[in-house]
Amino acid sequence: MRICRVAVGDELHYGVIEQEAVALLSSHPFGPFEPEGRVLPLSEVRLVAPVLPSKIVAVGKNYLAHVREMGGEAPPADPMIFLKPSTAVVGPGEPILLPWQSEQVEHEAELAVVIGRLCRDVPEDRVAEVVLGYTCANDVTARDLQRTDGQWGRAKGFDSFCPLGPWIETDLDVDTAAIECRVNGEVRQSGSTGDMVRDVVELVSWISSVMTLLPGDVILTGTPSGVSPVVAGDEVSVTIAGIGTLTNPVVDRG
Amino acid sequence: MRICRVAVGDELHYGVIEQEAVALLSSHPFGPFEPEGRVLPLSEVRLVAPVLPSKIVAVGKNYLAHVREMGGEAPPADPMIFLKPSTAVVGPGEPILLPWQSEQVEHEAELAVVIGRLCRDVPEDRVAEVVLGYTCANDVTARDLQRTDGQWGRAKGFDSFCPLGPWIETDLDVDTAAIECRVNGEVRQSGSTGDMVRDVVELVSWISSVMTLLPGDVILTGTPSGVSPVVAGDEVSVTIAGIGTLTNPVVDRG
Repeated sequence: MRICRVAVGDELHYGVIEQEAVALLSSHPFGPFEPEGRVLPLSEVRLVAPVLPSKIVAVGKNYLAHVREMGGEAPPADPMIFLKPSTAVVGPGEPILLPWQSEQVEHEAELAVVIGRLCRDVPEDRVAEVVLGYTCANDVTARDLQRTDGQWGRAKGFDSFCPLGPWIETDLDVDTAAIECRVNGEVRQSGSTGDMVRDVVELVSWISSVMTLLPGDVILTGTPSGVSPVVAGDEVSVTIAGIGTLTNPVVDRG
Repeated sequence: MRICRVAVGDELHYGVIEQEAVALLSSHPFGPFEPEGRVLPLSEVRLVAPVLPSKIVAVGKNYLAHVREMGGEAPPADPMIFLKPSTAVVGPGEPILLPWQSEQVEHEAELAVVIGRLCRDVPEDRVAEVVLGYTCANDVTARDLQRTDGQWGRAKGFDSFCPLGPWIETDLDVDTAAIECRVNGEVRQSGSTGDMVRDVVELVSWISSVMTLLPGDVILTGTPSGVSPVVAGDEVSVTIAGIGTLTNPVVDRG
């Protein structure tokens, strides 16, 4: 099932995508939900970010080839986590804004896990119960500031630095999904979620042993190799097989 | 004015403290607000965390003496920021839970700035317009994990690692406030907010040039020297002159 969030006039609604249409839901999808009746052609609605997370927990250095391209040799002994602010979230088609503070903003295609239930200390064999589904993410990063700042709160925290979408796919084999990033149609990153150092089950369980996860919280699972700069005028697409494509234009913030 | 949040039976209310009583408010304090009528003795209500932030932006290495005690020589060229999750927030009297993952959990007394209005790119001379007030914070840190993890998402992100309170003081001279941390009554940290490398005005303006700040967002402004471990059974108090004292017991999570 594909769960989306759409703008209909001035209102935002959750919906379920059925072929070329969206069946609006009467409530949010973090509990029992049902259609409210209206079914709109997909071409007539605007998709927005499929979720507004209370927190975004991101995992660094989770693909060995990316660890190496960043100058490292081996992944960290424990998962390395950091947070991105919810104000960084944008939806499909919304611009990635280049801040004046950086001269090197880069894309990082990532599989995003959307949490469905309040949970903590989730054992690995029960992770499936707390995951609502998966979407595409771009962990946009000011690489120059990441190098100099020490902590990554600024480099990864600018407004618009967390595109999410286009929708939440509830059924996905996350152990073998192809993940790709294209800039202006040219492939820059191409990997498989099967190459993660720690898989989704291990990450969700591990993170939930540190902090309570809330419905709608998002976990970014790391990026494969091939990260590269983007400039104003570029169009960046993250594609995950079985989910879809998240595309965002790149614009100077001015 | 002192703005608090209190539990009255099953309900949470914002209130204003008037001597030994709390005048409940009819709404939240991030816009025009007025008393709803009920006035309760302070001794009969339970204070909870005065705000539930959408994000907590924390500033590292903002007191030179603390930079030195951590082995550094000079503060970073730019402010170093990281995020703490909202699930880390607890209120006055609520326990700081020691996680099994760490053997060295330490207190960090900090002045917390509570943002009152949605804002971004705030010039320094307009920072006062976007600040609702100030409260005490404890940026609880698993020092051993902070050393080994690289990024601080885990070391500073455990549930209960962000006590806030006891209330929001709207009128405070933040350039000269004494700040102190006591463990079981013994002074461990004693400094002045005047010793910050970058003051509140500079920090709020700088952070707002990176990310939009929302009403209720909290900025932690760094800790003076004297950080030290706490163990189960301890009682930790953060006192800021002109605000008050935030006290939390320390408990094994088990």
